Amino acid sequence: MNRYKLTLEYDGSDYVGWQRQDNGPSIQSVLEDAARCFTGEDVVVHGAGRTDAGVHALGQVAHIDISQDRRPDTVLDALNHFLREVPVVVLDVEPVDDDFHARFSATGRHYRYRILNRRPRPATTRGYVWWVPVPLDVEAMKDATQELVGEHDFTSFRATLCQAKSPVKTLDRLEVFRDGEEIVVEASARSFLHHQVRNLVGTLELVGKGRWTRQDVADARDARERAAGGPTAPAHGLYLVRVDY
Amino acid sequence: MNRYKLTLEYDGSDYVGWQRQDNGPSIQSVLEDAARCFTGEDVVVHGAGRTDAGVHALGQVAHIDISQDRRPDTVLDALNHFLREVPVVVLDVEPVDDDFHARFSATGRHYRYRILNRRPRPATTRGYVWWVPVPLDVEAMKDATQELVGEHDFTSFRATLCQAKSPVKTLDRLEVFRDGEEIVVEASARSFLHHQVRNLVGTLELVGKGRWTRQDVADARDARERAAGGPTAPAHGLYLVRVDY
Repeated sequence: MNRYKLTLEYDGSDYVGWQRQDNGPSIQSVLEDAARCFTGEDVVVHGAGRTDAGVHALGQVAHIDISQDRRPDTVLDALNHFLREVPVVVLDVEPVDDDFHARFSATGRHYRYRILNRRPRPATTRGYVWWVPVPLDVEAMKDATQELVGEHDFTSFRATLCQAKSPVKTLDRLEVFRDGEEIVVEASARSFLHHQVRNLVGTLELVGKGRWTRQDVADARDARERAAGGPTAPAHGLYLVRVDY
Repeated sequence: MNRYKLTLEYDGSDYVGWQRQDNGPSIQSVLEDAARCFTGEDVVVHGAGRTDAGVHALGQVAHIDISQDRRPDTVLDALNHFLREVPVVVLDVEPVDDDFHARFSATGRHYRYRILNRRPRPATTRGYVWWVPVPLDVEAMKDATQELVGEHDFTSFRATLCQAKSPVKTLDRLEVFRDGEEIVVEASARSFLHHQVRNLVGTLELVGKGRWTRQDVADARDARERAAGGPTAPAHGLYLVRVDY
């Protein structure tokens, strides 16, 4: 078998998420359909991260095994040909060794979250940002990130259904900055818990509104229960930007 | 009557364009409907520029006259309330004198055109960029703009149906730059001919591909006939960014 690493961009708006499910189309299933059309074989697509319904990707990574030995450009063009009707595109294809695994070999994952922080609703960015109409204090949000960066028990910020064995993770980077009318939150770690980025953003938004202080964030973290953390920010503001190997 | 200047953002994808027409919803008509719901009066919305079907705006300007004297924030919130189901939002409302006219008082119009220049199709920016898969030479495009900036007879670059009295216009600014995977063309002038920006972009794209030289652009300009100019770039890459008064 020949293994290929795929770098992917997709608009998650109309999908049930990355993972194959019975209740609607998933990114994984449209990719598997395209790979089957191309190769004539049943192909399993393994992704680096299982993005939720509505979450977008600018640089998701996946791998596939196919029996034919094809040039990477051929794989790229063929998959994109069969994906032409859907908002999922293959940006890059690279042949990799059998010991490469999109999920298990990943050493870093980078997410971006876009908040449109202005009184009027989004028009041209509907479905691509979280609209927060009240002015957020970016400096306070930046300051509060200090309580979240590093190694912590993130129980307060993971989905109650999260299946990870340990709630202890190391958050390598958590940045907040303004970009025109948007406030961007960027998070990097080796791996994340389920809903972790969205729950951190929901928490930082409370700080930005002045409803929570930096100390409230520390207290929420130390409570180690999901009910103590902030709300889950909407899926459609989140982007999986890059995966490192 | 009380006159208000409105600054507008809209996603033109599903509209027949700015102007009221019989064949589908226009930006003007949804704004007039919202103004009628708010005031109980028939209101005419006068726009600074008549954007084509599919063209977007980040800062279109319009004015309305209403009999009630309302606070600008009230007008903003009321219009946005009645626009809540559509991708059209009022960004700003300002009371203006009776001699202000959105179209006739404008002293400058600024457009942006976004080209996604990469081999894979757009996924998250579908409908918001023109996808050009072959690599474009940005330096050559920049160089060719020198033949277009300034006062010229733009007959070769205006729609054959354009109703402007004179084809002579002064193009104050025409910039081409790279922004990640996108190539952006920005154009500024007191006013533009019909399809002028899209025809200039279509022409510059030929230069970027290497099919036209800077001299070909000069020759096309001097021919003063539409058939000599480049093709019309698609509407969905174009944004009306700002109008000056």
